[in-house]
Amino acid sequence: MTVPPRSEPTEANTLGEVGEFGLIRSITGDLAADPRVLVGPGDDGAVVRIEGDLVISTDTVVSGVHFRPDWSLPHEVGQRAVAAAVADLIAMGSRPVALVVAFTAPADLAASWAKQCTQGMKVEAAKSGIALVGGDVTSGPVVVITVTVFGDLAGRSPILRSGARPGDEVALRGRIGWSAAGLRVLSRGFRSPRVLVDAYKVPEVVYSAGEEARTAGATSMIDVSDGLLADLGHVATASGVRVDLRRDAFTVPEPINAVAAATGADPWTFLLTGGEDHALAATFPPGSVPEGWLVIGRVAETGKTGPEVLVDGQPWADESGWDHFR
Amino acid sequence: MTVPPRSEPTEANTLGEVGEFGLIRSITGDLAADPRVLVGPGDDGAVVRIEGDLVISTDTVVSGVHFRPDWSLPHEVGQRAVAAAVADLIAMGSRPVALVVAFTAPADLAASWAKQCTQGMKVEAAKSGIALVGGDVTSGPVVVITVTVFGDLAGRSPILRSGARPGDEVALRGRIGWSAAGLRVLSRGFRSPRVLVDAYKVPEVVYSAGEEARTAGATSMIDVSDGLLADLGHVATASGVRVDLRRDAFTVPEPINAVAAATGADPWTFLLTGGEDHALAATFPPGSVPEGWLVIGRVAETGKTGPEVLVDGQPWADESGWDHFR
Repeated sequence: MTVPPRSEPTEANTLGEVGEFGLIRSITGDLAADPRVLVGPGDDGAVVRIEGDLVISTDTVVSGVHFRPDWSLPHEVGQRAVAAAVADLIAMGSRPVALVVAFTAPADLAASWAKQCTQGMKVEAAKSGIALVGGDVTSGPVVVITVTVFGDLAGRSPILRSGARPGDEVALRGRIGWSAAGLRVLSRGFRSPRVLVDAYKVPEVVYSAGEEARTAGATSMIDVSDGLLADLGHVATASGVRVDLRRDAFTVPEPINAVAAATGADPWTFLLTGGEDHALAATFPPGSVPEGWLVIGRVAETGKTGPEVLVDGQPWADESGWDHFR
Repeated sequence: MTVPPRSEPTEANTLGEVGEFGLIRSITGDLAADPRVLVGPGDDGAVVRIEGDLVISTDTVVSGVHFRPDWSLPHEVGQRAVAAAVADLIAMGSRPVALVVAFTAPADLAASWAKQCTQGMKVEAAKSGIALVGGDVTSGPVVVITVTVFGDLAGRSPILRSGARPGDEVALRGRIGWSAAGLRVLSRGFRSPRVLVDAYKVPEVVYSAGEEARTAGATSMIDVSDGLLADLGHVATASGVRVDLRRDAFTVPEPINAVAAATGADPWTFLLTGGEDHALAATFPPGSVPEGWLVIGRVAETGKTGPEVLVDGQPWADESGWDHFR
């Protein structure tokens, strides 16, 4: 049996016209060679060489839930999906190695949308040093993209949520609150401040942060995806500690103050509970916080109320993180 | 911050009532310990130890596309998703090691559906010797399940689609046509023959087949997921060979004959083009086909028409495999 030749995706085509294999070819046609990738797309599985233990993480984005096609361009959707997934790898202290994507879409989706989305994935993959090695393409009523990523610990131990110790300093690398403020802007029908809208569309992940924290001896680390309080809450629970944050450690960014004032919100809600910027939060032995990281608090023994996160010595009133079913 | 306690899924609850973290707990609460899994669910990523090169494959099933909730029980949907994914690992000659699942569902889905589905995944994972190590749970308008699996080559080379050589014998391990015939039965509103319906709902993958083929020196191998002709077509193209199949090598199973007769179909359409049974097809040097494998043809040099699959010396009239967007 020979595979019939089909046209490449252009503006005029839908996925139904291009076909499953046409889309796969357009995704895999221009992949860069990577010495770690022994077998790329096109067989039953990809084959990748890693040196140490393997870190795995998987993340799904759904059209209308995690992104709105009228707000985000397809390449932004692709970039964001990869950035969010790779952030988990670096938060474990691993080196990003390989990525597979499962792409579900309706047959009447413009093939160009799918192609630009996967181009965005490749852009962000190149930024973070990860190789796209394969995937699955299938039809469904709505666009659903699952990105699964693999990191290499290269002989070292993972940096877990459970390693924070009383006395450690708590530090942050990357932005918080920007994505949530950008979402607020878009939700109110505005397109500016542009920096916030852009931050919502594609998070700016500091890909060097995981390695910086590892080198400095981080005792615990987490990707801030659900919001700073929610994610440090996971660290507190896993480590059996209390995390004390100080608001005077932060400078509220001017655009976030502006959006809070214009929309009647508390800027601290964005900073403390806004997710999806994918900063890294980590704990370090006293005096060993690396350059570029912002010290935001300290780890303490738990009190009577158990593991918790306090802000200026008090529980935060609106501390809820994001729950996908609520 | 403390994570508030929530009820476990029961018949009465929807995912919206149970919450994202409640569902995650119900999935990960009873995982068996596995020496290969260094860090299980609950951190930014799972950590897995593998000996050799890593094989990766990802597969998505969508409600209404790959399964119908009125035809398949939730645990059958889960079993099938895992079986299909693991079949790709063994078709590469690797040992199944770890699995992550991305589960997207509407908030009003019964929590028991999600729980039974993941229980089915665990049942099939145990059968195939793979460990569930993590996942992602998110809301969306329809159930979409992406299973990503990891295999260990343990110092050996992968068995690719591209290694078939003229003179090799072509052999098959597992059933073909059963799932397609079962689907035909259900599509016509019947529930029997039960063996076919069951084969459609949960494929019976021969998990030892990959190792058997490797030990015997298979030159190429593929998971028959799209249909025998379509998948051997991939082998022919990748290897630059012709594959000659002989129909007299097959015995048409009695239930398939019965369904073909009752529904006005050609039983050979089921056998040659029916997908989703996840048999393995492989090529072997002459005389080295292992026990339990059915010799179904031979590999030859390509003729003027290039790589192809012939049935009794002729192209098969209806040779199309499944294209998800057509």
